[in-house]
Amino acid sequence: MSALSSDSPSAILSISCPDQPGIVAAVSDFLFQNNGNIVDVDQHVDKEFGVFFMRVEWEIGGFAVPRDEIASAIASLVERFSMNWSLYFSDVKVRVALFVTKDNHCFYDLLSRHESGELAMDIPLIVSNREDLKPVAERFGIPFHHFPITKESKASQEAAEISLLNEHDIDLVILARYMQILSPQMTGAFPNRIINIHHSFLPAFPGARPYHSAHKRGVKLVGATSHYVTEDLDEGPIIAQGVTPVSHKDTVHDFVRKGRALEQSVLSRAVWLHLNRRTLVHENRTVVFG
Amino acid sequence: MSALSSDSPSAILSISCPDQPGIVAAVSDFLFQNNGNIVDVDQHVDKEFGVFFMRVEWEIGGFAVPRDEIASAIASLVERFSMNWSLYFSDVKVRVALFVTKDNHCFYDLLSRHESGELAMDIPLIVSNREDLKPVAERFGIPFHHFPITKESKASQEAAEISLLNEHDIDLVILARYMQILSPQMTGAFPNRIINIHHSFLPAFPGARPYHSAHKRGVKLVGATSHYVTEDLDEGPIIAQGVTPVSHKDTVHDFVRKGRALEQSVLSRAVWLHLNRRTLVHENRTVVFG
Amino acid sequence: MSALSSDSPSAILSISCPDQPGIVAAVSDFLFQNNGNIVDVDQHVDKEFGVFFMRVEWEIGGFAVPRDEIASAIASLVERFSMNWSLYFSDVKVRVALFVTKDNHCFYDLLSRHESGELAMDIPLIVSNREDLKPVAERFGIPFHHFPITKESKASQEAAEISLLNEHDIDLVILARYMQILSPQMTGAFPNRIINIHHSFLPAFPGARPYHSAHKRGVKLVGATSHYVTEDLDEGPIIAQGVTPVSHKDTVHDFVRKGRALEQSVLSRAVWLHLNRRTLVHENRTVVFG
Amino acid sequence: MSALSSDSPSAILSISCPDQPGIVAAVSDFLFQNNGNIVDVDQHVDKEFGVFFMRVEWEIGGFAVPRDEIASAIASLVERFSMNWSLYFSDVKVRVALFVTKDNHCFYDLLSRHESGELAMDIPLIVSNREDLKPVAERFGIPFHHFPITKESKASQEAAEISLLNEHDIDLVILARYMQILSPQMTGAFPNRIINIHHSFLPAFPGARPYHSAHKRGVKLVGATSHYVTEDLDEGPIIAQGVTPVSHKDTVHDFVRKGRALEQSVLSRAVWLHLNRRTLVHENRTVVFG
Repeated sequence: MSALSSDSPSAILSISCPDQPGIVAAVSDFLFQNNGNIVDVDQHVDKEFGVFFMRVEWEIGGFAVPRDEIASAIASLVERFSMNWSLYFSDVKVRVALFVTKDNHCFYDLLSRHESGELAMDIPLIVSNREDLKPVAERFGIPFHHFPITKESKASQEAAEISLLNEHDIDLVILARYMQILSPQMTGAFPNRIINIHHSFLPAFPGARPYHSAHKRGVKLVGATSHYVTEDLDEGPIIAQGVTPVSHKDTVHDFVRKGRALEQSVLSRAVWLHLNRRTLVHENRTVVFG
Repeated sequence: MSALSSDSPSAILSISCPDQPGIVAAVSDFLFQNNGNIVDVDQHVDKEFGVFFMRVEWEIGGFAVPRDEIASAIASLVERFSMNWSLYFSDVKVRVALFVTKDNHCFYDLLSRHESGELAMDIPLIVSNREDLKPVAERFGIPFHHFPITKESKASQEAAEISLLNEHDIDLVILARYMQILSPQMTGAFPNRIINIHHSFLPAFPGARPYHSAHKRGVKLVGATSHYVTEDLDEGPIIAQGVTPVSHKDTVHDFVRKGRALEQSVLSRAVWLHLNRRTLVHENRTVVFG
Repeated sequence: MSALSSDSPSAILSISCPDQPGIVAAVSDFLFQNNGNIVDVDQHVDKEFGVFFMRVEWEIGGFAVPRDEIASAIASLVERFSMNWSLYFSDVKVRVALFVTKDNHCFYDLLSRHESGELAMDIPLIVSNREDLKPVAERFGIPFHHFPITKESKASQEAAEISLLNEHDIDLVILARYMQILSPQMTGAFPNRIINIHHSFLPAFPGARPYHSAHKRGVKLVGATSHYVTEDLDEGPIIAQGVTPVSHKDTVHDFVRKGRALEQSVLSRAVWLHLNRRTLVHENRTVVFG
Repeated sequence: MSALSSDSPSAILSISCPDQPGIVAAVSDFLFQNNGNIVDVDQHVDKEFGVFFMRVEWEIGGFAVPRDEIASAIASLVERFSMNWSLYFSDVKVRVALFVTKDNHCFYDLLSRHESGELAMDIPLIVSNREDLKPVAERFGIPFHHFPITKESKASQEAAEISLLNEHDIDLVILARYMQILSPQMTGAFPNRIINIHHSFLPAFPGARPYHSAHKRGVKLVGATSHYVTEDLDEGPIIAQGVTPVSHKDTVHDFVRKGRALEQSVLSRAVWLHLNRRTLVHENRTVVFG
């Protein structure tokens, strides 16, 4: 299931379209006719909305259609089924910007998984509204960009951030406990390409200080939720969630501590899924081909 | 930890009071002086509110103070520390009324755990707003009381229910998927003595049709919460919570199905904790001496 | 995903065969050509063994091939790809025999899920080596067959059981905490059609008294495993597993108590998967199209 | 519950002794008489072995007995109850040596939790049988000691390691995916002071390549176990365990990947418990006052 274990690079085609008979047959036949050796295939039909989703991954080696001709080769399929589609190649790494503030746990976790090769991405730059984690970035030799944000400077700083991201061809933004709310200009610039980790089991406890709210409510489990960021705070499509038990003995500090391992694990899972093109978004929900 | 495994009956003293030094020493000393063989003891200090909680269980056999004199024997302790306290005996079973509607899974689960001796309670009666589960009650030989409820009849029917419960010396009401909202007259009559199972991870998705809301939101885990019922719907002190994974493949029907085993397990855990006097309530939160 | 939510009955084709290009295309095309409206489709390739697995479910209503001609209609596909296959219909219920001994929790749980329609099966009979649960069977109006088993009588009693099962066209045997080891004659008579629940996280603690062994080892989680029964005790293909936390405070009795809800939930999940034809077995492992 | 949240340093007294009435009363009274403000107290009786365990933490500020006189102040208690006891102070950090090989995930995780203050320890040195992670140690400015180990050199290298550890007054050794089996000379030198993370749900899959064995067995959950190291490989007292779901889709590589976050989380939890003196060992089991 993991691209890491493949011997040769693969192509990944991700499709969504109105459901109708014959889609699987047509796509399968296209790959079969062109000697595509399928590595992995998943599909799903959302009966409620009548939408078909598919993710198919096949080996590039031996495939009859060159990479840059695949788009035109599937043009008739695309038209016939009114497909939305994306094509990726497993040897083209996603270019990622990490946004951080002062908590280091998700930051280190992503950097160590990147270093070990688990997360196949390039990280050309790190963005932060504070300077606390600059030394960490330096240890890993990754350029650190400091954008302090005030109410007044927010719009201009975000515009500068967007320029920087575009300049570096950033595909994906990961908010690794970044403690600023993004404005619509930022979320609109990277639709379904900004991943956040929120430290609660959404939709419970959105917004600020969820561990405090959870403690006050007396919950017996604390959660973490990784989701795509949309204009609506903490309302975007959920990619992954997790929980861990707490008790009356735990203070808010303990909630924070116990939540850390959970946040790391949920965020890194969501990032892995995105990097491996295993997420599709429709109507504010995700299809996750895990 | 379980009373089931004890050879002899035990007394359970449950205490809450303003925190101050010397409480544990005083209670321990009282038991020691009277040959109390402690089976289990737990205590907790809520630093935020400055409240001390304690649950101590000791064998009645060999204890120097007869059952009906324990209250007066601890009177000076109670006064010294301004204690709220309750005294229970493990061989006096809690008298329980089960409230059901039409879902049978929690109902059967409680009845089978009662039958096997896991849940040490008496169930003199079952109450329902419908007749669907009457045959199940009959199979178990438990009187079934049907109180159909309309908007108009609600107040009078609840009054009749309260009379019935009092007549039978009911200590605890368990809402085993009872699909009616209780009015303040009912919740007020049984403070911290009505246990509900809500089919979501509260405070997410309170109210009606939580699985539908969860499905619409696209969560990756569904939850269940067992709590004491208060005037505020789904806002009472939480006793136990659990979650189970779901995916985009699951319809609302699948959420319901996957949630069933979870609801059973969370509710029976909460009931066991209550029956064993392991729950204490303060400021809308529980201390659970599990 | 659940057959319960379908409006019309469906056919389910379950396939395993040597992996090669073109299988998905061929099966999809067959269904498409015959107006098969696909409800659900899953496939998997075991790269290690080079085996392809598929489960496809489509609506019978509107399908061009009558039920009893489907087998011959797919004959050329079967031959071309050397398929092992099975064909099921969602409106033909699996005929199940429940084997029990004295623990009632899994027994009640299966009966209540059967009663609610969650588990679409017929239960023509119950088998037990003891009479403890006969009253429960009677409550549900299901014939109860008592086969006391001694070392001497085991072979003949099992032979009698097999006759009884065959007489009633039993498809599936569920060991709902049945405390007898089945002999090879029994396991051989129902290959991959006997489901057991073992009260440990296999392969830890196989055999007798797993909670005692787990307690002695000082584990922090107890588990339950549902698996197909083979000649080798507790070594058969695993269908589902679960765990629940325990602590030093828990006695063996507490392990048993906490394990009960887990056993119910793991067993009912495994049974649901089997009844919905979502399990395929290969090389002592399962493919579970959940 | 966390020392992090205390305003003033605390003393921690950890006790085990034969169970008898009066211990809690005597200890509580001692603290009360000396103005000890109890922060946290837990006790447990192992009924099977008749052993009493207690952990009590109180504020040093205001306590009538100076730190270095506490031992003599409790001498009569110790004698009266035949106590094994240890006394710790929350402001005296545990001195830790990290042992690593080549996997970086647990290593980074411990270093980042140390850096954030979550794990209150000093790390004077890192030991490894390989040089792969030397650059990571350097990034954090921690001396890295390379002890390559062959069959022939093992005894002398371990002796050198023990000398080094003693020279630096090391209290605790953490094997953060250290891929060498320790000999009895090493385990004997640090009884209940070496913590390992094993990448399976022990006692399932002890020894080498547990993910491979788990994959071959077809389990549906993979686990991780943190335990104290004894002479018997993977048989020491368990501190913490966790599991995460896997499926037939997961290769061994996926098991490894999914296991990483779990290993981190289980190991860091065990280390936190040890550092906060919340673990007591008896008869190869732990009492964990979490």
